[in-house]
Amino acid sequence: MMKKDDGLFFEGSEKKAQIIINAEKLSLLTDIDNNFWEALVKSCGAKILSSMTNNSCKALLLSESSLFIWHHKLLIITCGTSQLVKAIEFFIDSYPINTIKQISYQRKNEYFSHAQPSCFSQDVKTLRQYISGKAYRFGDLDSHHNYLFHQDNNYQTNINDKSYEIVAYHISEAASKILTDTNLTALNIRNMFNIDKLFAHFDIDDHVFHPFGYSLNGIHNEQFFTIHITPQAESSYISISANFDLISLLPHLITILAPTTIDILTSNELNFEEKIKNKLPKQFICTSLVKASLSIGEKIVFSSYSQNTRHSCDAINLKMYNEVHSL
Amino acid sequence: MMKKDDGLFFEGSEKKAQIIINAEKLSLLTDIDNNFWEALVKSCGAKILSSMTNNSCKALLLSESSLFIWHHKLLIITCGTSQLVKAIEFFIDSYPINTIKQISYQRKNEYFSHAQPSCFSQDVKTLRQYISGKAYRFGDLDSHHNYLFHQDNNYQTNINDKSYEIVAYHISEAASKILTDTNLTALNIRNMFNIDKLFAHFDIDDHVFHPFGYSLNGIHNEQFFTIHITPQAESSYISISANFDLISLLPHLITILAPTTIDILTSNELNFEEKIKNKLPKQFICTSLVKASLSIGEKIVFSSYSQNTRHSCDAINLKMYNEVHSL
Repeated sequence: MMKKDDGLFFEGSEKKAQIIINAEKLSLLTDIDNNFWEALVKSCGAKILSSMTNNSCKALLLSESSLFIWHHKLLIITCGTSQLVKAIEFFIDSYPINTIKQISYQRKNEYFSHAQPSCFSQDVKTLRQYISGKAYRFGDLDSHHNYLFHQDNNYQTNINDKSYEIVAYHISEAASKILTDTNLTALNIRNMFNIDKLFAHFDIDDHVFHPFGYSLNGIHNEQFFTIHITPQAESSYISISANFDLISLLPHLITILAPTTIDILTSNELNFEEKIKNKLPKQFICTSLVKASLSIGEKIVFSSYSQNTRHSCDAINLKMYNEVHSL
Repeated sequence: MMKKDDGLFFEGSEKKAQIIINAEKLSLLTDIDNNFWEALVKSCGAKILSSMTNNSCKALLLSESSLFIWHHKLLIITCGTSQLVKAIEFFIDSYPINTIKQISYQRKNEYFSHAQPSCFSQDVKTLRQYISGKAYRFGDLDSHHNYLFHQDNNYQTNINDKSYEIVAYHISEAASKILTDTNLTALNIRNMFNIDKLFAHFDIDDHVFHPFGYSLNGIHNEQFFTIHITPQAESSYISISANFDLISLLPHLITILAPTTIDILTSNELNFEEKIKNKLPKQFICTSLVKASLSIGEKIVFSSYSQNTRHSCDAINLKMYNEVHSL
C-alpha cells in the first residue's frame, strides 16, 4: 500500500464494497471504459496504478488496494484513510438505480480508527440516503471484528459465489524485516510466498510501494485473488482474498509470516468448521467464531485466532509524530 | 457509571490521571475545599455525587467514576467521553507549577474510540504545552492496550507505592443479566462480590446508576480501592483498582463474572509473573505481557488474557441509533 512519507504507520485495514448489477442492462466489463473507473476510484481517494484484463474479469491495481470488475459485478477494496462509501455513491449517481441488484459494504476494525474520516455507522447513514439495508457486526467491538452492510431487497445470493479472506496481524520480526527491506523486488515477494507455483494459471500484476508495502492482483478466467501487505512491525497487516477456497493455504501462510493473530472471513463456505480443523498450530486459540445467515441468503462466518504471546515484549515508546501525523 | 438514556451503549473504558505534589507547600487534603474539586471535576465533564473522608484520604464518587485525594497526591479516574486532560490543565492553571512533583496520565483502548473527543496523541500534545514528558503504549494497537504519559523530570517513584488494576471484559450472560436488573440495589452488588467480608476494614461509598451501572469507592487509612461496573452485554467493562495487591482476588472475580478477557496493569509489583501463576483457569491464554521500567523508577507490567470462545456467537444486528447517538 502507498505509504506516508515517514513510513512508520499505515492503516492496512481494508474496506470492501461489492456492487452486483443486472448484466442484461449493462456490462461493467465491456460497456464502461477506464475513464469511469478512474473517476470512481478517485472519488474515494485512490488512483489506478495498472490493470490487466481477460475475457471475464478486469483487475486494477490501486494506490489504495484493488478493484475487480466482471460483467455483472465489481469488487473494490481500499485501505488507509480512503472513503470507500464515496465510490458507492459515485456509482449510484452514475447509473439508474434499477441497474443495481445488490450493494454490500464491509469494514474491518482499524488499528487507529480515530484517524478515519468516518466510522461505520456514519457510512451506513450515508448509504441509507440511497438504499435501505441491514447492518451487522461480526466479533466484539474491543477485539477484531468486521462490519457488514447489505442492501435489503429481494436479491438472493448464489450459494456457489463464495469468497474467502485471510488477514494476518503482527507478523514475526523476521518476516517484517524481509518485507521492509528497501531493496525488495516484486519477484522476491512472489518467491517468498511461492506465488508462481501456488497460482500457476493466474495472470499476475503486482507492485512494490516505497518505502514499504506490496499489492498483488491475480486473475484466471472468473477467478481472482489479491494480496496486500503492510509490513511495518508495529502495525503489520497482510490480507489475501479470493473467490475460491484459501483455507488450505493457512499452514503455508503461518510458516512464512508467523503472525500473532489471524482473522478469517468466508461467504457461502458451508463447511468452514470442518475445513479449519488442524489448519492452525495448536498454540492458536479461537477468540471469535461468529456465523450469520443473511436475509439475502448469504452465509457468513467470521473467526479470529490468537496465539499465546511467544515472549513478553517491551512497551512501545511512542513516536508521537506518527500518530498525530496520521490524523 | 452514568448511562445515556438509551442505556445500550456506554464507554466504560477509563482514563486516569495522577498528580503528586510537594505536600510541604500544600496539602491537597486539608488546604483545598470541595469547591475546587467540584470545579476541577466539572472541567473534564463530570460531577461529584458523594464523598467520604478519613485522616489520610478523601474519596469522591463521580458521575464519571472517582477522585481520590491524599495530602500529597490526587488520583482521578473518568470514563465515558470525559476529557480528563482538561482536569490536569485545570490543576496546573490553579497552582504554581513548582508545587507539582509529577504528573502521569493513562488511557485505555476504548470500545468505540471514534466517539472520543480526542485521541491519546492529541492529549499528549495538550499536556506538552505545560510539561515535558514521555509517552508509551503497552500492548498492540489492535488489541487491548494502555497508553501512559508521565512527566519527564528528576522525580523518582517510591517503589513501595504500588498500584493494581484489573479489568474484566465481556462478562457472562448470567452476570450481565444480574447486573442489568433495574431493581438492583447497592447492597445486592456488594453481596454479589462479597465486598463487606473481603474489604471488612474499609469505609464504603457506592452508587447504582440508572438504568445501569455501579461505582464503589473504599478507603481505609491510606488504602483505597474502587470498582466501576458497566454491565451492558455488548460492551461490558468491570474495573477494580487499588493501591494494594488485588492479584489474589482474580479467581473470585472470574467465578462471579466469567469474563472473556481480563487485563491487568500493575505498578511497582516486582513479582507479577510469580503471583499470576495458577490464578487464571487454563482456558485463558496470555495474549500480551509487556513490561517497562520508566525513567522515573516506576516498574509497569501490563498483561491481557483471553479465553477460548466458549461457543460460537451470533452476528450482532446493529442498532445503528446507539452508535450514532454516542458520537
